[in-house]
Formats: sequence, structure tokens, C-alpha cells
Amino acid sequence: MIMTAGFVGLGHMGNPMARNLIKNQVKLLVYNRTKEKAFPLLKEGAEFVESPQELFQKTSILFSMVSNDEALKEVTLGPKGLLENEKPGSIHVSMSTVSPALIHDLRIQHQKKGITLLSEPVFGRPDAAKEQKLWICLGGESEAKNRVLPLLLFMGQKVFDFGETPEAANAVKLAGNFLILSNVEILSEAFAFIQKSGGNLAAFNTMIGEALLPSPIVKGYGKRVLDRDFKEGGFRMELGLKDINLLLQSADSARVPMPIATLLHNRLLSGIAKDRGYLDWSAIFFSAFEDAGLRDSSSTQ
Amino acid sequence: MIMTAGFVGLGHMGNPMARNLIKNQVKLLVYNRTKEKAFPLLKEGAEFVESPQELFQKTSILFSMVSNDEALKEVTLGPKGLLENEKPGSIHVSMSTVSPALIHDLRIQHQKKGITLLSEPVFGRPDAAKEQKLWICLGGESEAKNRVLPLLLFMGQKVFDFGETPEAANAVKLAGNFLILSNVEILSEAFAFIQKSGGNLAAFNTMIGEALLPSPIVKGYGKRVLDRDFKEGGFRMELGLKDINLLLQSADSARVPMPIATLLHNRLLSGIAKDRGYLDWSAIFFSAFEDAGLRDSSSTQ
Repeated sequence: MIMTAGFVGLGHMGNPMARNLIKNQVKLLVYNRTKEKAFPLLKEGAEFVESPQELFQKTSILFSMVSNDEALKEVTLGPKGLLENEKPGSIHVSMSTVSPALIHDLRIQHQKKGITLLSEPVFGRPDAAKEQKLWICLGGESEAKNRVLPLLLFMGQKVFDFGETPEAANAVKLAGNFLILSNVEILSEAFAFIQKSGGNLAAFNTMIGEALLPSPIVKGYGKRVLDRDFKEGGFRMELGLKDINLLLQSADSARVPMPIATLLHNRLLSGIAKDRGYLDWSAIFFSAFEDAGLRDSSSTQ
Repeated sequence: MIMTAGFVGLGHMGNPMARNLIKNQVKLLVYNRTKEKAFPLLKEGAEFVESPQELFQKTSILFSMVSNDEALKEVTLGPKGLLENEKPGSIHVSMSTVSPALIHDLRIQHQKKGITLLSEPVFGRPDAAKEQKLWICLGGESEAKNRVLPLLLFMGQKVFDFGETPEAANAVKLAGNFLILSNVEILSEAFAFIQKSGGNLAAFNTMIGEALLPSPIVKGYGKRVLDRDFKEGGFRMELGLKDINLLLQSADSARVPMPIATLLHNRLLSGIAKDRGYLDWSAIFFSAFEDAGLRDSSSTQ
């Protein structure tokens, strides 16, 4: 055991991330609202604690990976939350996709307790988390970032540093998700056009993947759309809506009109209204197709 | 000399493409409305003819690369045009970015004269043309495509086959340009958001290029935008507007709403209205920035 650390939030992402820390000889203290989700990790050597507060009594570096702003407020500011401690010199590494505004507020709350808040949200799905292939956005004080960097590299393949202000990393995460989903929308519009122009969609997608936009993300979504594969390993539309809402709220505060983000918001709302909220967010594809009068038996999957 | 062929249209693209044929031992007959543009090629061994009509009297394979629908109509159907011939078994390879509807009409006109019309539009800028690195979209009859393939490979790095209907390749070309320009718009919206959120644009662009969307086209435009480099080697906004108009007209005929294409149309119109028509089309970037109240000394370049 080279190090002790804490981990709050053991969902689809947190679980494989915590496991990678354990695999790399980190003595891990874990907390999750639903204790059952921690059981597999306990078998691998993790120790369960009864509250976030208790974590900071036993370790000085703590990671959190929870599903939204409310959950992060709860584990930090709630009863028996991790800020019910005075722990100068310790570090809370928030890795959740939450609003920059919340991180801004929490940073100040942490400072009052002597705790440094870093915000290091990640790109990648649960399978990438499992394979230690996340991309991690770094935001916060350099000295604290340097201390946690070795641990982050047990969870991700690469880090990108966005400076000393933790919330800047959250803005980057939201903007990155926007770039990804925008590419799904533009592929969908182009596919509808090609299909109704009598073109060969598979050949078109091959050209996109080999010549025009040969990135794994665009290739992956092109394949999902052509295969109508919106179920397995997906990032649900409901979660996508959460992220686009965070982006639009932040863009609203910053006074930045983002017409394509507004379109994506409507696409997600429409998909969810049509009972597709449990599908991968790339199922916004159906909107462009349906708008063009194209029907598809898989649209009711 | 292994083969004789003709080439009509010796502009920024046609000139380097024709030169690559000559370099590869093709005996080339050339025609251009403005003869002066042919001079460099004549020095390298090309022979000038006085009309498109004359070309098909001397060769049975002819390439054309002209700037728009009107120019293609002129060289094919105009006085002394190349269809003022009966030439069974010969092939006209149109490589211009023109409307699918025009290619559909011209195909029928060609058939009446015994000539096969292929449509093989290209992706790539003049520097890619020079380096034999174009991507070529193939549309038209297989037998004719096979005959011209060796010549196409003197001009491009790779071909993508879109079947027997020539106009399908034009739909692909228009959709491809749409995908490219859409990525400029989404980068611009994201950059405006990051800048006003206090983030580091250069670091954000690095992450996009290395992780999220690591394709040469996205990297290239990200760099152009950050460097405000909209002048050299560019594809002018005015030409971009031509292509987006062709796309929207084709999408209109096919009954395909494309909200992002409509947005791009407005971005290009606004850029041109602000005297940026001569800049690279990625200067639509200024719209998202200006909408967000961001000013930039380079916006008046």
C-alpha cells in the first residue's frame, strides 16, 4: 500500500474508477449512499465508511464521482457531509460533471475548512473507465493537482490542464459534450439528406470515417446510428439532457448565445417526449430522420 | 505517353490536377475560357484547343473542373460545347462541385450523344490537389469508372465509390462540405463559451485535437480560428455560400429539413454582408463571437 485515499460515489463510472485505484495499490476508503454498490469493491480490499464526513477523518485525499449538482451538494454540505471537518492541507477532487457555478461556490466553502477543491471531470464511458482510458480535465491549484496526479493517472490515459480555477474544467467538460453531441446531429442531418438523395449511407459513412472526420468518436457514433444501436453501453438521453441544461444555464450566465446547443436541447426533449429517454443520446438521430418523413421500424425500439 | 485525355477548366483546382496528369505521362489537351491560365501547362507539354467541342474530336476521355453550375452548362451545352459531338464510347468526367439536379439533367443529354457522364467531385484544397492528395467521390457507370480510375489516381490519394448514379456523388460532396463547415460553427460556439467562462482556449483546442475530435480537418480549423488565419490558401466564404445554397436547394427538393445547414447559410450571409466574403469560410467563426459580445481586432482584417 503506497497511499490511502477516499472515494464517494460508486455508480457506473465511480465503481470502475475506484477499482483502478485499488488495483494500483491504493488503500481505498469508500462511501456510497446505497451500500450494496460498494460490495464488489469491499471484496477487493476497500473499506466502507458510514458517511462522507468520516472519510476526511481517515484520509486527506478524497475523490467524488456523483451524478448531478444535487448529489454533490449533499455529500459536501449535507448532514455528515465531508465539509463537517476542519482539515487543513487536505484535498477534495470532484470528478463529476456538474455546473461551473456550483464548483465556484463549493470552492469557497472548502477554503473555509482549509480544504482545497479540485475539479477534474472526465471524458469517457464506463468501458473507458474500466480500461483506465479516461481523459481527465484538470482544474484547480497547481500544488494540489501535482499531489493527486499519480492517482489520476491510475484512472485515465491522459490529463489536460485548464489552469488554477477549478470551475474552468467544468466549462470545458460541458463544451466537450456539446461538441460530441453536435457531431451526432450533423451526421443525422447529412444521413437524412443522403438517404433521400438515393445515396449509399454505408459508403458515405466510410468516407467520413476514413477521410473527412476520422476520429474514434465520430466513427463510433456513425456506426451506432447506421446500426440503430442505441442500447448497450450507452449514455442515456436523460443524462445528455442534464448536461445540455447545465451548458445552456452556464452559457446563459456568461451571455453566450449557442444556437446549436439550443437545437440539441430541443432534440433531446423531443426524444425523451417520444419515450426514448433510456436510449443512448445519439438516438437524437431519429429527429432529423423523422423531420424528413423517414420512418424506421427501430424508432420504436 | 500512355494515354491521351482532355481537361476543361484550369482554375485553382483544375490547374494542379491537370499538371498531375501531365507529370504521369498523360498527353493532355486542355481548354480554358481564359487562355492565359493554360500557359504554364503548355510549357509542360499540354496542347491547347480552341473549344470544348474540339476536345472530344481528339480524345475520348475528358475531365472538367469548373466553378459552378452555369460554367458546366456552358462548356457542355453552350456553343462549341462538348456535346456538339456524337462520340459513342467516350467519357466525360465532371469533377466540379455542382448540383445533383444539374448532373441528373446532363446525364440524359450526354446519353443522347453516346457519351457517358461520370460525376467525380473531390474533397481537398489547391495544395492537396498539387500534392495528389485529393479524396475523390465516384458516381456513374462501373465500366466507365474502371476505365478512368488509373487517371483519377494520378490526381487523388483515395477514391470512394457511391454507385452507378452520377448525381449521388454530388449529394455526397455537398453533405461532406456541410459536415466540415458545421464543425467550424460548433467549435466557434464552444470557443465563445470557454472564453467567456474564463477558460484557456489553447488548452481546450489541444484537448479537442488530441482526444475528442482528432481529425486533421478539425485540427486545421481549430488552429485557423485561434490564429485568426483566414487569408492564405483558403476556401472563400463566397464559394462556401455557393455550396451551402446548392445543398439547401437539393435538400429542399428532397424534402429534408436541415436546421444546421440553415444556420450555416445565415452565418455565411452575415459574414459576407460584413465584407468578409473574400476570407476563408471558417471566418463564420466571428458570428458566434460577435453574438456573444466578444470583439476582436482581427475581425476587421
